[in-house]
Amino acid sequence: MSKYVYLLFKKEGDASMRNLLGGKGANLAEMSNIGLPVPPAFNVTTEACTRYYEDGKRIGDDIVSQIDAAVPELENVIGKKFGDPKNPLLVSVRSGARASMPGMMDTILNLGINDVVVEGLAKLTDNPRFAYDSYRRFIQMFSDVVMNLGKGYFENILKAMKARKGVEFDKDLTADDLKELVKEYKAKYKELKNTDFPQDPHTQLIEAIEAVFRSWDNPRANVYRMREGIPYSWGTAVSVQSMVFGNMGDDCGTGVAFSRNPATGEKGLYGEYLFNAQGEDVVAGIRTPKSISELEQDNKAVYDEFVSVVHLLENHYKDMQDMEFTIEKGKLYMLQTRNGKRTAAASVKIAVDLYKEGLLTKKEALLKVEPSQIDQLLHPAFDPKSLKTSKSIASGLNASPGAATGHLVFSAERAKELKTKNYPVVLVREETSPEDIEGMIVASGILTATGGRTSHAAVVARQLGTCCVCGAKEIHVDEEKGELKIHDLVLKEGDWISLDGTTGLVYGEQLSTVPAKISGDFKTIMKWADKYRSLKVRANADTPRDAKRAYEFGAEGIGLVRTEHMFFEGDRIRAIREMIVSKSVENREAALAKLLPMQRGDFESLYRELKGYPVTVRYLDPPLHEFVPHSDADILDLSKEMNIPFEELKATIDGLHEQNPMMGHRGCRLAVTYPEIARMQTRAVIEAAINVNKTEEFKVAPEIMIPLVGETKELKFVKDIVVETIKEVLKEQNASLEYHIGTMIEIPRAALLADEIAKEAEFFSFGTNDLTQMTFGFSRDDAGKFLDSYYENKIFEFDPFKNVDQAGVGKLMKMAVGLGRETRSNLKCGICGEHGGDPQSVEFCHKIGLDYVSCSPFRVPVARLAAAHAQIKFPRKARKH
Amino acid sequence: MSKYVYLLFKKEGDASMRNLLGGKGANLAEMSNIGLPVPPAFNVTTEACTRYYEDGKRIGDDIVSQIDAAVPELENVIGKKFGDPKNPLLVSVRSGARASMPGMMDTILNLGINDVVVEGLAKLTDNPRFAYDSYRRFIQMFSDVVMNLGKGYFENILKAMKARKGVEFDKDLTADDLKELVKEYKAKYKELKNTDFPQDPHTQLIEAIEAVFRSWDNPRANVYRMREGIPYSWGTAVSVQSMVFGNMGDDCGTGVAFSRNPATGEKGLYGEYLFNAQGEDVVAGIRTPKSISELEQDNKAVYDEFVSVVHLLENHYKDMQDMEFTIEKGKLYMLQTRNGKRTAAASVKIAVDLYKEGLLTKKEALLKVEPSQIDQLLHPAFDPKSLKTSKSIASGLNASPGAATGHLVFSAERAKELKTKNYPVVLVREETSPEDIEGMIVASGILTATGGRTSHAAVVARQLGTCCVCGAKEIHVDEEKGELKIHDLVLKEGDWISLDGTTGLVYGEQLSTVPAKISGDFKTIMKWADKYRSLKVRANADTPRDAKRAYEFGAEGIGLVRTEHMFFEGDRIRAIREMIVSKSVENREAALAKLLPMQRGDFESLYRELKGYPVTVRYLDPPLHEFVPHSDADILDLSKEMNIPFEELKATIDGLHEQNPMMGHRGCRLAVTYPEIARMQTRAVIEAAINVNKTEEFKVAPEIMIPLVGETKELKFVKDIVVETIKEVLKEQNASLEYHIGTMIEIPRAALLADEIAKEAEFFSFGTNDLTQMTFGFSRDDAGKFLDSYYENKIFEFDPFKNVDQAGVGKLMKMAVGLGRETRSNLKCGICGEHGGDPQSVEFCHKIGLDYVSCSPFRVPVARLAAAHAQIKFPRKARKH
Repeated sequence: MSKYVYLLFKKEGDASMRNLLGGKGANLAEMSNIGLPVPPAFNVTTEACTRYYEDGKRIGDDIVSQIDAAVPELENVIGKKFGDPKNPLLVSVRSGARASMPGMMDTILNLGINDVVVEGLAKLTDNPRFAYDSYRRFIQMFSDVVMNLGKGYFENILKAMKARKGVEFDKDLTADDLKELVKEYKAKYKELKNTDFPQDPHTQLIEAIEAVFRSWDNPRANVYRMREGIPYSWGTAVSVQSMVFGNMGDDCGTGVAFSRNPATGEKGLYGEYLFNAQGEDVVAGIRTPKSISELEQDNKAVYDEFVSVVHLLENHYKDMQDMEFTIEKGKLYMLQTRNGKRTAAASVKIAVDLYKEGLLTKKEALLKVEPSQIDQLLHPAFDPKSLKTSKSIASGLNASPGAATGHLVFSAERAKELKTKNYPVVLVREETSPEDIEGMIVASGILTATGGRTSHAAVVARQLGTCCVCGAKEIHVDEEKGELKIHDLVLKEGDWISLDGTTGLVYGEQLSTVPAKISGDFKTIMKWADKYRSLKVRANADTPRDAKRAYEFGAEGIGLVRTEHMFFEGDRIRAIREMIVSKSVENREAALAKLLPMQRGDFESLYRELKGYPVTVRYLDPPLHEFVPHSDADILDLSKEMNIPFEELKATIDGLHEQNPMMGHRGCRLAVTYPEIARMQTRAVIEAAINVNKTEEFKVAPEIMIPLVGETKELKFVKDIVVETIKEVLKEQNASLEYHIGTMIEIPRAALLADEIAKEAEFFSFGTNDLTQMTFGFSRDDAGKFLDSYYENKIFEFDPFKNVDQAGVGKLMKMAVGLGRETRSNLKCGICGEHGGDPQSVEFCHKIGLDYVSCSPFRVPVARLAAAHAQIKFPRKARKH
Repeated sequence: MSKYVYLLFKKEGDASMRNLLGGKGANLAEMSNIGLPVPPAFNVTTEACTRYYEDGKRIGDDIVSQIDAAVPELENVIGKKFGDPKNPLLVSVRSGARASMPGMMDTILNLGINDVVVEGLAKLTDNPRFAYDSYRRFIQMFSDVVMNLGKGYFENILKAMKARKGVEFDKDLTADDLKELVKEYKAKYKELKNTDFPQDPHTQLIEAIEAVFRSWDNPRANVYRMREGIPYSWGTAVSVQSMVFGNMGDDCGTGVAFSRNPATGEKGLYGEYLFNAQGEDVVAGIRTPKSISELEQDNKAVYDEFVSVVHLLENHYKDMQDMEFTIEKGKLYMLQTRNGKRTAAASVKIAVDLYKEGLLTKKEALLKVEPSQIDQLLHPAFDPKSLKTSKSIASGLNASPGAATGHLVFSAERAKELKTKNYPVVLVREETSPEDIEGMIVASGILTATGGRTSHAAVVARQLGTCCVCGAKEIHVDEEKGELKIHDLVLKEGDWISLDGTTGLVYGEQLSTVPAKISGDFKTIMKWADKYRSLKVRANADTPRDAKRAYEFGAEGIGLVRTEHMFFEGDRIRAIREMIVSKSVENREAALAKLLPMQRGDFESLYRELKGYPVTVRYLDPPLHEFVPHSDADILDLSKEMNIPFEELKATIDGLHEQNPMMGHRGCRLAVTYPEIARMQTRAVIEAAINVNKTEEFKVAPEIMIPLVGETKELKFVKDIVVETIKEVLKEQNASLEYHIGTMIEIPRAALLADEIAKEAEFFSFGTNDLTQMTFGFSRDDAGKFLDSYYENKIFEFDPFKNVDQAGVGKLMKMAVGLGRETRSNLKCGICGEHGGDPQSVEFCHKIGLDYVSCSPFRVPVARLAAAHAQIKFPRKARKH
């Protein structure tokens, strides 16, 4: 029989078991093992969750039995009993997956309480206020989280009660008030559910555990998983932990703290706590908590103990810790610890500091920085010039750095709506809650009125790498009216607003930004990454500006120049169109002759920017109809401009129409039908290289890349034209030049026959965008119509256009590399699809033995770090050519 | 050093060496070896031809040396000398590839003759007429065939001469006339070529050999190769044979004969000959030759010798022979023998007869019938009813059977033009020539005014399986005016005309046809085929009519029902459109409910026609926009009909537009987004089966096929819906039923992950149309724009939509079968793409272990025979399930 329940207080788990116990459970076990004050707990495993779904969303009888068997053990160790009014056991129930999963179920505290227990608790603690406060909290949480009744009903009752009693804060309600509140809550529950509030602790427990399992599949969780690439199959574990109480009086409290500043990485305790409160009070942002540093004055003994625990945990985990604690009657309990979420900047600083402190090796330090996260550091900041002329309209806590400018929205729904229309949005909320997760994902920035640095908004924003200002007390949000008021200033939905997550300032206008630089600790990390990685990183760049940025970001070459991207500027489009409408080879050649000097000039600039690093030029790829207008009015204009009768031009353009342009007359097929295009491009590539080599110290060895090849003879046909032209040019100029001719692997057939293709290709570059389209048989343009259904139904768990589909597309890639190198052992292999900048895909490329990845210039540092991670995790020898 | 020249008279070759020596050369060698009277010859190999192309279209010096060395050997054996006027050696030069290649170079006769030799020859033979006739023929052939000067110039000179002399036939010209003609020919040659006619026999020979090599690459040869799937790389061999002369006088002659009737297969000599003529006179159709049977009266000795040679050759080759012979001064020489081309009917009869005669085993007899050819036997004949009311307008020789009706055209170009617009055409020519081959390929029928049963038109038509009537003497063709005159009747280009190739009758109208039946020898052959094959054959059928025909043609099930093909009839399209424009699941379900009884009825009919054989139903596949109108006018009509505002309907229809519909929202993607469609179709499939099983003796076990699957979870998602619905229906009806659920493999990813897919699929059916599109990355609709360039440049040598691309697509198929059966050893695998009826592809499917092929009903017998061939050539055990 499988073991589904682990008794953490019996050392049945440890930190290495996070896949089975979830991160929370594994760390509870570990803390317990190393002797920290952790309330005893048991854990229902992630496998129980997967079973729950396999069994058609029910908890198997064997699992229930194991839970039932765990309860007395917990009762024994703690000396309390479920439902025993004389000595009642209360527990918390928490979800905990392998990875942190915002959007999943909120915690349930005080489970085990009921009409009888509450009385016993009141007597036992001599604190009826505490007892009824705990009960009312439990009813509220259970009704909302387990029964899905919604918070509103109970909050309204609480509000009404406070109004009736004339008090501002919950804590000012008396025991009798709370007793009355419990009565009203239970009545409301009965009204809504048509049954009494469950009194049996066992029923409460199983319902709560099932609710955790259920929450694994809620829409918010699914959205988050998609974004982070977390498999649905992981499931969540459940921690059932005996309660300690921060709400027993003023010698009690609860708090959360980081061992280092999660926004900047500065060493030192960073966090907040509240007296006489339970956990959710701190993070919910309802009462503004005190800074952790104040604890030293409030209770030096506890503070000192906490500091030493923090020190111990940091040394133990060798990472910055994010901890929850509770003080019950002056005694400290640790409820949770985990490696803390942090901004990219903090991540980089902490990694370097931990290395300097001797806690980590360079390799270990590198692994502490998530490649996907450092993208943040490359995000623009506000242009200092535009900041000079602007005045902030409010300020809040600088919870997550960066600069955001966008249209003001007040709801997640509206954020998503506008975002699908490509408007940048800034989400403004009184406070955020897990329901807002989808809106937070699409927003450029997040602004809240209440809540501290550890509030939901702050935590999630940092994780998302989204700029966030929170607790901006001057702002008043009226979501119904769609208004944001700051003293006399009123902003409406849709107005421009800008946030500076680094300074915490808010601006009521659109601000311009400047790009980021690689310096300081970031530079150190990148230096280390370059030292360890074996995979080269290039950039996709079509213009000298892109090429310059790529070089600055550390690209070791250009892996893809999309020549056609230069065709739309100025006179070029005219020449291209002339070529397209030509009826004879001679006319086409005449039009191409006009393009030649422009292309040559472009290539010269690119070569110069790359200073001798390789530059891979892909020959004309898109179908020709992309270069001509399609509406009658535009065709008429063009017909006048080109002096061609309208009807004739229209017929020519109509003739370019294709049923499935993605699979049409494009790529090397253009060079097969119009070899003169390949001739002109070859001339431009080679003449440019000769010119640059004459004046520069470095030597350019151009790489010519033939796209969309599916058959060796097709490649050979085009290659023969290229080689013949190169020989012509070299002879004309009496020059010599190193050059390489290779191909894209983006047609499944090319991958399947890579051993043949490699006979004619010196290098392969995987065009994973097209390869993904062809391998899956759907076009990116159209798949949007049905892919949502695929995500909803868990058919796809990630977007194959973002992460390489390793099972299918990846299998083809692996096959192609293997077959290609059977023919040509020094075959250079790279990737130039958009996947080249995705860390998971970079790791895959490393594993299958690619020589380089090529991605957009901004992703170059991400890829460099991802490549280092890959090498550290899966060492390989660098390939020689 | 490679051997490029083989001395056939020295037994350096035999019949087994056709790949190297070509069919003609190998058979010359064989005949020579077995002691038949064959003029000595040597052969330049096909490898010399491939070298010629590899060396940039020049004959390598080593090859020339070998030819130079062969000439003296030939001179020795025959006792004559090249260029020696006292005893001159003349030779013929003929092309001969591994397979017969109409469209390649015509023969060159009398090579070695020149101004000096002609005089010597005249003296030696005491026959100046013969000498000058030979010379003028040589000049004419060499100028046309080797120098490409065109026949016209020389024919005009000859015509003028005949007019001047007042004679009708060439043979009536005197020696002096011919001498004069030679002078005029040489002058014309010099005028056109600006150089004297080559006098050196060595030069003549090398030029002629090179011309043969060159002709391998002429456009006609390429078109023919494409059609027959003959690889370009094979090349052609050249036979150089010492001349014997049929034009030395009236005791000389030349002829061609078949050992059995090539149109019907009847045993007995069948052929024609001419006295005092050279080879091309017989086949060119200029003089109408005598029947071979008349030779018995004309020269009994030669006739008897010929009969015994024929008998010997048939027994030797165990096949019907097609022979060329020449009689020189009463002595018989064999110039060529080969297995004769024949109609499908003849092929079938000859195979059965040869078995009965004890010459062949059943297996050998089966291999004598080309699967691709028997398609002819399934072609319709004219409806006897419509024939009754029609009167023929002319008659000719029934050269190739079948019935053809189409629009009259007079040129190959016009035939091609009209055919691309899908008009059926009948090509009418005075006589055909190799230049017409492309027109003959596209024509439904061929009619010529002159020429016998062995004329170019007749031979090629039989090979193509095209209906042909030749030598219809009453007709007068005026190609320039575009008129066909039969006595007073004038038909113009484009008029309807019908040919009966079985009776030789011509009709001046469009006639209706009736389908063919399988009976007699054909039935015997099919019975044998069924006995030997291990691959099952099913049909693709969408209607009861198709299903009936499939059953009659021997299909063992339906491999593909395209359910959507039933959607366009009557009320259905309305219901389908209602479903498409529905905005809610409920409305969609209401529309689908209307379709349910119709689909159920369709399936019942199909099941009944198939009498218990499996029926595989593919679920809705095409994108929905294929079911709605797209022009504003049609949308307006529909909006009125459906009572939906025009703008709304138009928006809905516009919303269905896709960039690349082939890769869009179709196949199982429809079932993922609209599970209710799959539910309705499942209900129809299952309810129909239950109904039929209630009333019929046989039991239907439906096969449900999910199309366009690329991911296991996608298949599982749809399968779960299907299974759930099946359970529902079975429960409602209290019935039980065997059923199977499988998938199409038509997305590359499905093939790559077939081991996973097979977990959920009981069978695979390869959709090679889509699989070919995705694997090559081009859509069939658009590829036409560039594929011609691919064929011209020899990048592709065959149409991958006709023959399975074994290297690429086939690799995926093989992989999928292997992976699939790793998971599920009894996985049933079939093919339902159009390739399923192509013999080459059938053989491939056999080799990779498929269980069945499914093709159009008309192709079923072709596939059955091809499957038998495959089993005989590559025996495998039948798979068990």
